[in-house]
Amino acid sequence: MTSICSYLRPDIASMAGYTPGEQPKVGEILKLNTNENPYPPSPAALEAIGSFATPRGAELLRRYPDPVGVDFCKAAAGALGVRPENIIIGNGSDDILTILTRAFVPQGGTIVSPTPSYLLYETLARLQGARFVTVPFTDNWQLPDPWPQRGASITFLPNPNSPSGTVLSLDSIRRLTEQLNGPLIIDEAYADFADGNALELVREGLPVVVTRTFSKGYGLAGLRFGFAVADPTLISHLVKVKDSYNCDTISLAAATAAISDQHWLLENRRLVLATRARLANELANLGFEVTPSHANFVWCRHPSHPAPPLYTALKNEGILVRLMHYPPHAPGLRITVGTEAGTSRLLAALARLVG
Amino acid sequence: MTSICSYLRPDIASMAGYTPGEQPKVGEILKLNTNENPYPPSPAALEAIGSFATPRGAELLRRYPDPVGVDFCKAAAGALGVRPENIIIGNGSDDILTILTRAFVPQGGTIVSPTPSYLLYETLARLQGARFVTVPFTDNWQLPDPWPQRGASITFLPNPNSPSGTVLSLDSIRRLTEQLNGPLIIDEAYADFADGNALELVREGLPVVVTRTFSKGYGLAGLRFGFAVADPTLISHLVKVKDSYNCDTISLAAATAAISDQHWLLENRRLVLATRARLANELANLGFEVTPSHANFVWCRHPSHPAPPLYTALKNEGILVRLMHYPPHAPGLRITVGTEAGTSRLLAALARLVG
Repeated sequence: MTSICSYLRPDIASMAGYTPGEQPKVGEILKLNTNENPYPPSPAALEAIGSFATPRGAELLRRYPDPVGVDFCKAAAGALGVRPENIIIGNGSDDILTILTRAFVPQGGTIVSPTPSYLLYETLARLQGARFVTVPFTDNWQLPDPWPQRGASITFLPNPNSPSGTVLSLDSIRRLTEQLNGPLIIDEAYADFADGNALELVREGLPVVVTRTFSKGYGLAGLRFGFAVADPTLISHLVKVKDSYNCDTISLAAATAAISDQHWLLENRRLVLATRARLANELANLGFEVTPSHANFVWCRHPSHPAPPLYTALKNEGILVRLMHYPPHAPGLRITVGTEAGTSRLLAALARLVG
Repeated sequence: MTSICSYLRPDIASMAGYTPGEQPKVGEILKLNTNENPYPPSPAALEAIGSFATPRGAELLRRYPDPVGVDFCKAAAGALGVRPENIIIGNGSDDILTILTRAFVPQGGTIVSPTPSYLLYETLARLQGARFVTVPFTDNWQLPDPWPQRGASITFLPNPNSPSGTVLSLDSIRRLTEQLNGPLIIDEAYADFADGNALELVREGLPVVVTRTFSKGYGLAGLRFGFAVADPTLISHLVKVKDSYNCDTISLAAATAAISDQHWLLENRRLVLATRARLANELANLGFEVTPSHANFVWCRHPSHPAPPLYTALKNEGILVRLMHYPPHAPGLRITVGTEAGTSRLLAALARLVG
């Protein structure tokens, strides 16, 4: 009998798949490897979730969700200073990146992103049967000018970038759009921790899409919710590409509550940025080279202690960070900004290891 | 300035998109148009949801979900008599159908399904840049033998079918697999209301995938949860195609609780089937031609009252059913099995309209 696997697209059968960061069960492990927010989400979001364990909640759950998330789009538009028609909802911003890929990239097309950067973009290219091409950042994490890959079907630009935590100025992004002959996706997963964002490029009518997530700044990685901001006509096309009901009723309600609680967001940001400053400072005192971060993690390397054994030693102590290697760069550690206590535990362990 | 929409794949720019059934706000409207379960979901599912409005819930929500849903797969395997490795989780079974399409169908490939059937299959074909070909059911809702489209990249077979509510025997599905030169996806969205299912074809090693949803039998359309059952090696390939975290922590917990409560499922099924029998019987008494249903809806036409004005008259009374037209068949009404009270209201309205 023919194996059903023999019918897979060859691209799929041969691909390795994206490996997410490790997810141990809740317990003694200190997780500083996947850039989750160290603090619980807005109480308003939890209250919205709890409201579903009621007869009225049951009545809502037996029905299909609002396919476009009208209430969320209104709340997000108010919070961000855009119009509801500028917004499409996603089951995490990964869903949004998939929708954009399927909308813009034909089989045999090209996906471009700078490197080192988010590893998922290559997976999206493989899934779509597209070529993946990277453009190295300059030594100080800027874009090369002129940009050497102008004809991409889609260009992904994470800003702030991971693993570096660096940001590009709006002027350098504008300069990139002038050179591209295709859409630019500005992946702002970490923008809630930066000093600015690219929403005004959407307002200016540039051919860009800005994507956002609730997994980082809003502390709701378990909820799977993200969205994109773009030209309303483009949004109406993207809606055709998404699953009709890609966001569930509970996550829509929780995300609407969370984005309406900007006070929580700003207070959380204040806490994370204070700890980020301390973490960067103390890592530097331990001799690490620390890239100045605009996100909720720091990227560091030690000149005399290679990253792989540091990663393993931390793991043996129950501290997970992300070991990342982008040749020709030496491997480095991407360390999520945790609580003050978690950061103290990490720094004490590193002090023993490199002291 | 170039419009960002000019960069869309032509397939996407020109497509119409799938139109889901209407979703009015909760209120006086009697919704019998999208085959939602008329009863609230298992209390165990609601309790699982409520548990997230707590500090421990908050801790889980700030983290990413389990990417493969280990606990759900174990519970589902126990309930269905398969192995956990046979299962892949989805953000609704629509997500599963998208994953299967992306895994098996190249751009320019072919997707086949019988007709009249689920309208989403054509949308999936358009999104993938594939050709969509339909094969008419025979007059008594069986498959033509020989099957005329053997070379499809993927063949979708809904069983029970919508809008007819009819089922095919396992032998006729086996016969179809013998003729196909590609995978057969058996879409069992409505199997919880039928007398059998095709899981044993997976156990037999046939090149089939069985898909399931929590939107119908489990009364959780708002939760977005579905899964597929297939060969474990195929499952490991499909996992590469899905978004890493396609299911959120709350829906995983609720779905695990719901599938572990098979007592609720059987009791709900008993209620829905009793009302289905009454609905079919009374529709027949009103002169409707009613196709015997194995799902939670009935498909009917009246020989002297065309369906479109009946649909409109019901809508004007606040009763939504689904008007469906598959030429060369005359238009018909697909009516979801509601509560006893809702069914009485529908039947009273129809009695006035056709009496």
